[in-house]
Amino acid sequence: MLSTTNPTTGVTTDAGIVLTTDAELDAITAAAAAAAPELARRDRDWRASLLESMADALEERRADLVDVARQETGLGDPRLNGELSRTAFQLRLFAEAVREGGFLEAMIDHAGDTPLGPGPDVRRLLIPLGPVAVFGSSNFPFAFSVPGGDTASALAAGNPVVVKAHSAHLLTSRLAFEALRAGAERVGAPAGTVGIVYGQSAGAALVAHPAIRAVGFTGSLGAAQRLQQIIDGREIPIPLYGELQSVNPVIVTAGALTANGEALSAGLAGSVTGSGGQLCTKPGLVFLPEGEAGDRFAETLAAAIGAQPPHVLLGERVHENFERVRGELQSAAGVTELARGESGGHGYSSAAAVLSVGIDDFSVDHTEEAFGPLVVLVRYTDVSQVEAGLRVVPGSLTATIHAAADEAELTARIAELVAPIAGRLLFGGFPTGVRVSWAQHHGGPWPATNSLHTSVGVTAIRRFLRPMVWQDAPEAVLPAELREGDRSVPRRVDGVLQLAG
Amino acid sequence: MLSTTNPTTGVTTDAGIVLTTDAELDAITAAAAAAAPELARRDRDWRASLLESMADALEERRADLVDVARQETGLGDPRLNGELSRTAFQLRLFAEAVREGGFLEAMIDHAGDTPLGPGPDVRRLLIPLGPVAVFGSSNFPFAFSVPGGDTASALAAGNPVVVKAHSAHLLTSRLAFEALRAGAERVGAPAGTVGIVYGQSAGAALVAHPAIRAVGFTGSLGAAQRLQQIIDGREIPIPLYGELQSVNPVIVTAGALTANGEALSAGLAGSVTGSGGQLCTKPGLVFLPEGEAGDRFAETLAAAIGAQPPHVLLGERVHENFERVRGELQSAAGVTELARGESGGHGYSSAAAVLSVGIDDFSVDHTEEAFGPLVVLVRYTDVSQVEAGLRVVPGSLTATIHAAADEAELTARIAELVAPIAGRLLFGGFPTGVRVSWAQHHGGPWPATNSLHTSVGVTAIRRFLRPMVWQDAPEAVLPAELREGDRSVPRRVDGVLQLAG
Repeated sequence: MLSTTNPTTGVTTDAGIVLTTDAELDAITAAAAAAAPELARRDRDWRASLLESMADALEERRADLVDVARQETGLGDPRLNGELSRTAFQLRLFAEAVREGGFLEAMIDHAGDTPLGPGPDVRRLLIPLGPVAVFGSSNFPFAFSVPGGDTASALAAGNPVVVKAHSAHLLTSRLAFEALRAGAERVGAPAGTVGIVYGQSAGAALVAHPAIRAVGFTGSLGAAQRLQQIIDGREIPIPLYGELQSVNPVIVTAGALTANGEALSAGLAGSVTGSGGQLCTKPGLVFLPEGEAGDRFAETLAAAIGAQPPHVLLGERVHENFERVRGELQSAAGVTELARGESGGHGYSSAAAVLSVGIDDFSVDHTEEAFGPLVVLVRYTDVSQVEAGLRVVPGSLTATIHAAADEAELTARIAELVAPIAGRLLFGGFPTGVRVSWAQHHGGPWPATNSLHTSVGVTAIRRFLRPMVWQDAPEAVLPAELREGDRSVPRRVDGVLQLAG
Repeated sequence: MLSTTNPTTGVTTDAGIVLTTDAELDAITAAAAAAAPELARRDRDWRASLLESMADALEERRADLVDVARQETGLGDPRLNGELSRTAFQLRLFAEAVREGGFLEAMIDHAGDTPLGPGPDVRRLLIPLGPVAVFGSSNFPFAFSVPGGDTASALAAGNPVVVKAHSAHLLTSRLAFEALRAGAERVGAPAGTVGIVYGQSAGAALVAHPAIRAVGFTGSLGAAQRLQQIIDGREIPIPLYGELQSVNPVIVTAGALTANGEALSAGLAGSVTGSGGQLCTKPGLVFLPEGEAGDRFAETLAAAIGAQPPHVLLGERVHENFERVRGELQSAAGVTELARGESGGHGYSSAAAVLSVGIDDFSVDHTEEAFGPLVVLVRYTDVSQVEAGLRVVPGSLTATIHAAADEAELTARIAELVAPIAGRLLFGGFPTGVRVSWAQHHGGPWPATNSLHTSVGVTAIRRFLRPMVWQDAPEAVLPAELREGDRSVPRRVDGVLQLAG
């Protein structure tokens, strides 16, 4: 029997959920494997309606979902309501993308003479990979968990999904899964369209199972490495799409401080401590000029963060890990603590903090991700020092530049310096609060992710598709989108891109 | 000092090429790393001209290249001339794609209100990964070696390339490399745009080198696994794009035999033995109906292949491996040899062969890829037996269906059966002779490749790019293709695909 813990109180209760047995896992994966060809056969309109029906079903259960998630995660109602809205929006955006059909990358090269002789008729489309296993994260019980981006993109691609319920929010996972299943049933989806397993060993067995064709994962580097080891032991390897860790450097110029240092400092405090700092895009490292303006910025930030009440973290593991990393950062060379918020309180709560280090002392020891409400300021005098400092900063999801409007050249130079270690470059603003949209990219150089793919935005669907070519095929066996007269999707025909008509 | 062997005579001579030292490797990768940002900065027109200049330089050296390649590979002049033309065509096709710019996947989501609140301006483009290591194959000294598809696609993506010269055609590799370098110099490319290393340990060190950001590989599963082990030991993992092995099943129906069994049989003999059967798309396994028409097909095929003179294989390793696999297939349960061509001759020559097995005896033991002029016939009576048989056939680059025009339903059924294990489905024709075009896909489920990407055709470029997003960026730091007024490439703007204007 599995238990669930309220991180606000620290009280553990029986979740009323049992570990998934091997036999159950076999049945779940068999159902997913049986659903795969059926899902692949259904048309895009139906697939879009599946996603929309799931979005509806989630919103119908909004009150219950938010209630259970609050108890399991300690996150507040406004945040959880916003996250649920975002999760439903994401499903509907993917439905829109499925209807539009550009994600299929349809291409036709007609038969004909080429400089190398006669060429056959070649038609290409992306097709579903097969059942996808999804491992969500503790910090987004909706948007990066059971009904989150990996599930939405795998379903949008036409694949069944089997989720592994996160141990930190088991009841939320079950409730969200029931919503997805209800949404699926309402549009007549095959039984194995969505499945769920509980327990660490069921999760491991899921990744090892031959029916599973890809894994979506959001979590720690260590957990990802354990999943990769399981994959390495499979007869047939499968892709693991992991979103792992990110320190999200911010570079502030002297000009930015002069222009609006005050507002920036307040904004940074919010970005560092919102949701208890437990966001993969939380700015963890801020390069800040030495001198009076920089000191004022640091003081304002320290005052804002030092006055904060304790933050309830997501659970025991997150709490322990945050306190461990805080200790390591504080004992790293040259670090001083500028502020520490209130500590104490019940359950798994931690104090927010601002640390500071001079650029000459700065090293890889200061770059560990503290998953919680903590930021490290790195004080510099010249941008060439930032250049050197960035060489030890690990690949990140984001990098943010705060410069003044008249520092065009400096802005361009800093952008060039941080581009190699980031997947999203921000000019002003803060990296938390990732827009869910067509163009969004949420990924970055290792260890942020494997860098080639995104886990947010419409192009996330690409991860769960593979190309297929039909050569000289009779019209009847071609997918609808590759038939000669079809104009329902954008296509590249003989090298020329054509819009849907 | 490295040596080169003429497989036709078996005579080994000094190649006049020395092993690349560690210091040389460091200099080569440093030059590549220095070239990377410079290449990324140049515009698409320049990048296209680089590819075209390389194509020109290769064709200027055509006579020498074909001459040296003939001596090192034993392949004939028509084949080598055709392959060189294809290689130059491929570079020019990629130049065309670079000018067109669709491969950049440019997207813009303007700032504005969304159902989730105000959204920032988000602009996405694919950017080059960085220096790419390329390991070519022995069987295509041009098209899948130094100047081949991996090199062309990595350069088209905007990356420097360091090739590891294949030990089976060292002099061809050097000559082709000199052509690429001359082509690069002619358009003022940075010095590190292309590099080459010689020797197995230099190849291993190349894959381990921190400057290398991706590996393109065509060769055996075993060699790919050794490269993967090296990657697993890196601090920062990188993608390995391997095109490994493929048995390329063909399914012939009774109707196809009636309609044109004769022509089919002759065509198959050519496809199995062309280039000594040393093609990754060679049909290695043919499901053929039992009965008189099937017998006639088998007899015609056996007669055509049995009459063939010995085939000179590419070298000692290929020859040894082919004879080993032939022995294993022949001793597998239920196998009979229907024909064996002439053996003997000089150097590394092997006899072509036709083996046959009944569907009831058919197992995974009959599915090993024999890289050479050999085909296994699998005799069946009902398509349900083919369905069962296909379950043990490993993932392949291609699967080919030969059915009569009036067997529409059967054709569709077989297509559905083989789709899960293939990357390209052919309806009639033969899988050898891969068309180089926009829509082509050359990849398939493991162990053909990792299945998500292609190594032939324009979309091969995608392997060496990663997404990047600029959020709220000033116009000046944006890549040209993402600036507001640019219409030079197709873009998706606020979710709507727009053609270049």
